[in-house]
Amino acid sequence: MHHAPLPPRAPLDPAFLESLKARFGSQLHLTEAMREQHGRSETHFPTALPDAVVFARSTEDVVDLVRLCTEANVPIIPFGAGTSIEGNTLPVRGGVSVDLSEMNAILTVNAEDFDCTVQAGVRREELNLHLRDSGLFFPIDPGANATIGGMASTRASGTNAVRYGTMREAVLSLTVVTPDAKVIRTSRRARKSAAGYDLTRLFVGSEGTLGIITEVTLRLHPIPEQISSAVCGFESLQGAVDTVVQSIQLGVPLARVEILDAMQIRAVNRWSKLALPEVTTLFFEFHGSPAGVAEQIATVEALAQGNGGGDFAWSNLAEERARLWKARHEAYYAAVNMRPGAVGWSTDVCVPISRLPDCILETQADLAKASVPATILGHVGDGNFHVIFSIDPNAPQEMEEVSAINARLVERALAMDGTCTGEHGVGIGKQEWLVAELGDAVDIMRTLKRALDPRDLFNPGKIFAL
Amino acid sequence: MHHAPLPPRAPLDPAFLESLKARFGSQLHLTEAMREQHGRSETHFPTALPDAVVFARSTEDVVDLVRLCTEANVPIIPFGAGTSIEGNTLPVRGGVSVDLSEMNAILTVNAEDFDCTVQAGVRREELNLHLRDSGLFFPIDPGANATIGGMASTRASGTNAVRYGTMREAVLSLTVVTPDAKVIRTSRRARKSAAGYDLTRLFVGSEGTLGIITEVTLRLHPIPEQISSAVCGFESLQGAVDTVVQSIQLGVPLARVEILDAMQIRAVNRWSKLALPEVTTLFFEFHGSPAGVAEQIATVEALAQGNGGGDFAWSNLAEERARLWKARHEAYYAAVNMRPGAVGWSTDVCVPISRLPDCILETQADLAKASVPATILGHVGDGNFHVIFSIDPNAPQEMEEVSAINARLVERALAMDGTCTGEHGVGIGKQEWLVAELGDAVDIMRTLKRALDPRDLFNPGKIFAL
Repeated sequence: MHHAPLPPRAPLDPAFLESLKARFGSQLHLTEAMREQHGRSETHFPTALPDAVVFARSTEDVVDLVRLCTEANVPIIPFGAGTSIEGNTLPVRGGVSVDLSEMNAILTVNAEDFDCTVQAGVRREELNLHLRDSGLFFPIDPGANATIGGMASTRASGTNAVRYGTMREAVLSLTVVTPDAKVIRTSRRARKSAAGYDLTRLFVGSEGTLGIITEVTLRLHPIPEQISSAVCGFESLQGAVDTVVQSIQLGVPLARVEILDAMQIRAVNRWSKLALPEVTTLFFEFHGSPAGVAEQIATVEALAQGNGGGDFAWSNLAEERARLWKARHEAYYAAVNMRPGAVGWSTDVCVPISRLPDCILETQADLAKASVPATILGHVGDGNFHVIFSIDPNAPQEMEEVSAINARLVERALAMDGTCTGEHGVGIGKQEWLVAELGDAVDIMRTLKRALDPRDLFNPGKIFAL
Repeated sequence: MHHAPLPPRAPLDPAFLESLKARFGSQLHLTEAMREQHGRSETHFPTALPDAVVFARSTEDVVDLVRLCTEANVPIIPFGAGTSIEGNTLPVRGGVSVDLSEMNAILTVNAEDFDCTVQAGVRREELNLHLRDSGLFFPIDPGANATIGGMASTRASGTNAVRYGTMREAVLSLTVVTPDAKVIRTSRRARKSAAGYDLTRLFVGSEGTLGIITEVTLRLHPIPEQISSAVCGFESLQGAVDTVVQSIQLGVPLARVEILDAMQIRAVNRWSKLALPEVTTLFFEFHGSPAGVAEQIATVEALAQGNGGGDFAWSNLAEERARLWKARHEAYYAAVNMRPGAVGWSTDVCVPISRLPDCILETQADLAKASVPATILGHVGDGNFHVIFSIDPNAPQEMEEVSAINARLVERALAMDGTCTGEHGVGIGKQEWLVAELGDAVDIMRTLKRALDPRDLFNPGKIFAL
C-alpha cells in the first residue's frame, strides 16, 4: 500500500484557537515538538501532525473540546500511549489530538464482582500493579504498555487471549463522549445484559471514529493459585502448532501459548539477554490449582514429545516468569533493533487454527525469498501471528517489497476464511483489505459512521475514507 | 406496563399479496390459524396477528421477501420457535411474519476449529444431537428449545453462561439480509479480529430490527471428559449465594450453578416428578478432567457446608443428569402450570453478583405481600434471576399487581447498577425500562436504527417505538 503525501491544509481559524486557549490554558500545546510526538507512528507510516494537542483531565474537558471542535468543523483525534501499529492515531487531516494520558485514575475496584472502572488513560501495567493486592488481575496484554482506552479502541488482545479473550470480552461498559457532545454509558455493570443494541461492542474497535472513550469498566480475573511458565523448542513449526491444536482439543485450558521462529528467538536472545536455542519455540503459561496445573503440564509435555518437541525449560519463580514474558512483550522492539536504524512493519493476520500451519509455512516460504529481514511470532492458540519486518527507511524498494509480501499474506489469510487484522485494528494500513475481507458489510459500517458522525470529524480517514 | 389495543390497520394491498403469491406459492400462508400461531406470545402480551406468514427456505427467499416488503412499505418480522418472553416476535403493526424454522440445515462443522455454521432455524437441541459424535457441544441453553437465529437475535443465554458466556460470546459470524436487501457476512471465521466495527455483536441482540439473520457461525466447546451434577439444599438464600460467590472467588470454573427457591422446587417436583426437599436449592454442574472435577467438588462442598448447605445429591449418570437439567429447563412451565389456566410472566433482572443476595431478599419480601403465586429461579453465577408469576388471565387486577412488583424489581436492580433484562431482550415489555437504564445511549440506538432501517419496517415497535 502506498501513502500519498497529505494535501496542504489551511491553518486553524484564529478564533477557534482563541477559544481553545481560553478553555484549556496550559492543557493546550502548539509546539512543533508536542505536535510531532502526537503525529508519529511506531511503525512505517509517514508522520502527520495535528494542529494542536489538548491534554484532557476529565470527561467534561472532552465534552467541551468536542463542542468547540464540532462548532469549528475541526477534526478531533483521541491519543493514548501512541503505541498502535496501523497508524490509528495519526491526524491525517490535521485537527486537535486529544491526549488522554493524564486521565489515569483507577476509579473503582469491585473485587467481589471481579470488575473495575478506570479512566481511559490508565496503562495496563499500572492497572495490574494496583490490582495486585486485591488477588485479581487484568489479562489483556498487547506488547506495548498501552492505555486501556487505546486498547478498547483497537479491540486489542495479546498473549492471554486464548484463555481470557480480547478487549471484546474484557470490556463490560464504556463512558463515551459522542459526536453531539453527550456523555453516554453504554451498559450497566451486570455481567450480562440483553438491553438493546450492544453499544459497548460497537465502540470497542471503532478507533475513535464514533466518539471518544473516557472511562472503561473491565472484567477482572482471580490471580491463579499456581502459575507455571515454560519454553520448549521444536524440530518443526508443524510440530509446534500441532501440539497446541491437540492440547486445545483435549480441553487443556492453556493460559498463554506463543510461537517464535528461530530468527525471532535470536532477536529476543540478543535484546533480552536470554540464551534460548535458536529454533522454533513455544512459550507456555499454565494457570490453575497446583494439581490442575500439574495435570495440564503432563498432557502438554506428552503431546510435545510426540510432535518433535524438546524438554520443557521451566520458569516457576515470579521473577523468572516476569523476565520471560517481558522478553516476549518486547519481541517487536527486539526484532526491529536487529537492524540498526530500521523501521518496523508488523503484519497481523488471524486464521482458523486448523489453517495456521499452512498459513505460516507458506509465509515462511515467501519470506525465504525476501531481501528484508523478518521474524515470525504469534498467538498460536488464537490462529493469529505477526511477521515483523525491519525496513531500511532510506530504501524505498524495501517498503515496496514488504508491501507486496504483506499483500500476499493477507490474501492467503482471507482465502483461509481469516482476517487481515487479528488485533491491531484497521487504522490507515488495512483499509483496502477490510473491503476485501467483508465486502458489502463495510457499507453498513460507513452508514453507521455517517449516522453518528455526519461531518466526519472523529478520527477522520481511519477504518475507511468516507 | 399497559398495552393499549392496537390501532386498526388497512388490509394488505392486493397487488402486494399477488406478488407474494407469485414468488412464494405454498410457502405463503394466510389462514387465521397460521397467523394466530405467529401472533401469539408465550407470556402475558396480547395477541397481534401478522397479515401473512411466509416460510423461508433459503437466504435468497429472505432477500426476495425483503425486496417485496420494502417496495410495498410492509413490515417484516422474523420468527423462529416463537419462545421469546418479551413479545419480541409479535407483529404489532401487522405485516409479514417470516418463519425461518424450515431453514434448519447444519451447514458445516469444523471440529478442528471448534466452530460450526447453521441456518437460523436450527434448534439448539437438534444441534447438540448432531454434534455429539464430534466430541463437541454448543453450551447456550435458554429454557425453551429455541432456534439459533432467535437466540442470536435476543442475545440469549442460559445455565452454562457462567462458564461459557452468552450468545454475545458464542456467535463468531452472521449472515444477515439487510434492509436494503443485501446479504452480508459480518465477520470471517477467525476466532478474533479487529477488522472495523463489530457488526456481529451489533446484530446479536438487535431482535430483527436491523435485518434478518439467516445463518450463524458458532463457537463450540469440547465435551468435558468428566461431567458431574449435584443438587444441594440450603438453610438460607444468603448461604446459597455466598457459596457461589466464594467458589468463583477461589477460581472454581463452575459450569452451571442455578438457584431455585422453595416454591420453585415444589413446582419442579410436581411437574418433573422429582422428590427434592422443598428448600432453597442450588443445582450444580462441574466440567473437567476427573481429577479436576474432584478438586472443584471438594472445594465447593466445603464452602457449602460452611454456609448452611446440606449434603450434595449426585447425578453422575448421563440419564440422571439429563433428567435433572430437563427439570430445570422446564421450570418456567412447571411454575405456570401450578395454577390451572394461568398465564406466565417472567421477570429478568441481572445485577453485579455482590448485590444479588440483597436483590433477591428484598424481592422475596415484596413477593411475600403479593396475592399472585410466584417462584424464583436464577443463574446465580451471573447475577441473573427470574421471578415467575402465574396470573389469572380473567383478573385484570392481578396483571396490575404483577406490573407494579416488576416495576419495583427493575428499579431495585437499576439502583444496584444492574440491567432490566439479563437475557430475554427488550421486545415490547422492557422499552420504558431500557430508557431508565441507559438514558441518552438509547438515542444512539435510535440513530443506528434510523440509519439502517429508515422506514422502520424491520420488526417495528420493538426495543423502542420510533
